Amino acid sequence: MNTEAQPGTVYLVGAGPGDPGLLTLRALKLLQTADVILPDDLVPDAILDLASPSALIIPVGKRCGQPRITQAGIHALMLEHALPRNGEPGASVLRLKSGDPLVFGRAAEEIAALREAGIPFQIVPGITAAFAVAAELQTPLTDRSAASKLILATAHHAAGKVALDWSEAQPADHTADATLVLYMPGRDFSTLAANLLRSGIPPTTPCAAVSKATTPDQHVSRTTLEQLGHLDAATIGPAPVLLLIGHAIQIPEISASAALQDSTPV
Amino acid sequence: MNTEAQPGTVYLVGAGPGDPGLLTLRALKLLQTADVILPDDLVPDAILDLASPSALIIPVGKRCGQPRITQAGIHALMLEHALPRNGEPGASVLRLKSGDPLVFGRAAEEIAALREAGIPFQIVPGITAAFAVAAELQTPLTDRSAASKLILATAHHAAGKVALDWSEAQPADHTADATLVLYMPGRDFSTLAANLLRSGIPPTTPCAAVSKATTPDQHVSRTTLEQLGHLDAATIGPAPVLLLIGHAIQIPEISASAALQDSTPV
Repeated sequence: MNTEAQPGTVYLVGAGPGDPGLLTLRALKLLQTADVILPDDLVPDAILDLASPSALIIPVGKRCGQPRITQAGIHALMLEHALPRNGEPGASVLRLKSGDPLVFGRAAEEIAALREAGIPFQIVPGITAAFAVAAELQTPLTDRSAASKLILATAHHAAGKVALDWSEAQPADHTADATLVLYMPGRDFSTLAANLLRSGIPPTTPCAAVSKATTPDQHVSRTTLEQLGHLDAATIGPAPVLLLIGHAIQIPEISASAALQDSTPV
Repeated sequence: MNTEAQPGTVYLVGAGPGDPGLLTLRALKLLQTADVILPDDLVPDAILDLASPSALIIPVGKRCGQPRITQAGIHALMLEHALPRNGEPGASVLRLKSGDPLVFGRAAEEIAALREAGIPFQIVPGITAAFAVAAELQTPLTDRSAASKLILATAHHAAGKVALDWSEAQPADHTADATLVLYMPGRDFSTLAANLLRSGIPPTTPCAAVSKATTPDQHVSRTTLEQLGHLDAATIGPAPVLLLIGHAIQIPEISASAALQDSTPV
């Protein structure tokens, strides 16, 4: 299972939250042996530096200020490199995604493109941000007395569109027993907090907004749901931001300080 | 961040789903350098074989047929080895949990015990089963058109008790846009399926029950929610079993066959 990247094969691989120590052994081996690497822009240089010196690295992030690469453009790059050409086998292609490749990563579209093209592919899971942040903050995500469920969600799906209606999606009787982790919560915490409160989540529910989690610039803002709307963008810090909500979230002062000891507060 | 295990420190570490290739680099380094290792019974020998030859390995699984180790007994073992004794620093202790340590792993209780004893500890996330299974089956867990949320839940919390009332916890308007992954779904799929249907999840919703996921004995049973109740224990296969439910779950025949090519059907 822990083998080198094979010619003509695409690997959809989770790079984890950014810390190279949270790469899996299999991801590292593929990184060291792939011919072509297509990383998201959230994959840091510290990870890309582990690639073979002969690898062709083509960043396909959509927020790097370069001419925007479309999803179709990413598919075309995977196919261009992995398909056989002039009778020669294609290259081994590592599609390197931050976190885990199968949540909030448009994997469904990339898998469909690969299946349609008949290109063999493998998927390697990665540590998604929710778990990395919880480990860093030393807080459980479930708890036998406080949360039997973990819900990972995004506050917006399509570009610029807040599509999730919390008042329908999060009835009180559901979230009372859950930990909710919001990826990409956006910048408008006032509207978000109002929606969450209207859905019936109790105002006293603990919340933590974590900017640039697990990096040296990590910044944690702890509050309650009723105060969440008062957090402004400058206080929260730059993207990516993860929002944790629930009674299982336990971030004591001493623990948060320890977790933050290397960080530069924003 | 990728350092050796330190004396007098406890590391709560996720071992991932069982495949050593899905260990993180940090988990491997701690495994190679810890003095004492307390593994759950789901952590396979292939992972424990990576420990230092001089490490003291004390299995603390609760299902291994040995005299039952209580949660308090696990806490006592952590403290006994990590606390200083006779003026000497304590041992480095690796509490190795299958999957991720912060979901469904009673981490809250172990963290509380460590805080109360004043023992320094670190937490290292691991690949939880839901992500490993999805990667193996090559199915997305979220999808821009089918599922904007991922819900990880257990069908029973305390020993032998089915505590989750699905009719309250999973209203139709919620799960229509979600992928639900049930850990420890139990053996009574008939009652479980009835509860899920009663909660309003559509009968045609795709389901997959996966026994011994990511091991050579992995067995996948694909069905729909209305047929789920007809799956008997012999068909599903032995524990651990993971149940995936949702319209994002796409397991084509060809993909399921590929995923199963090394497996021994149960």
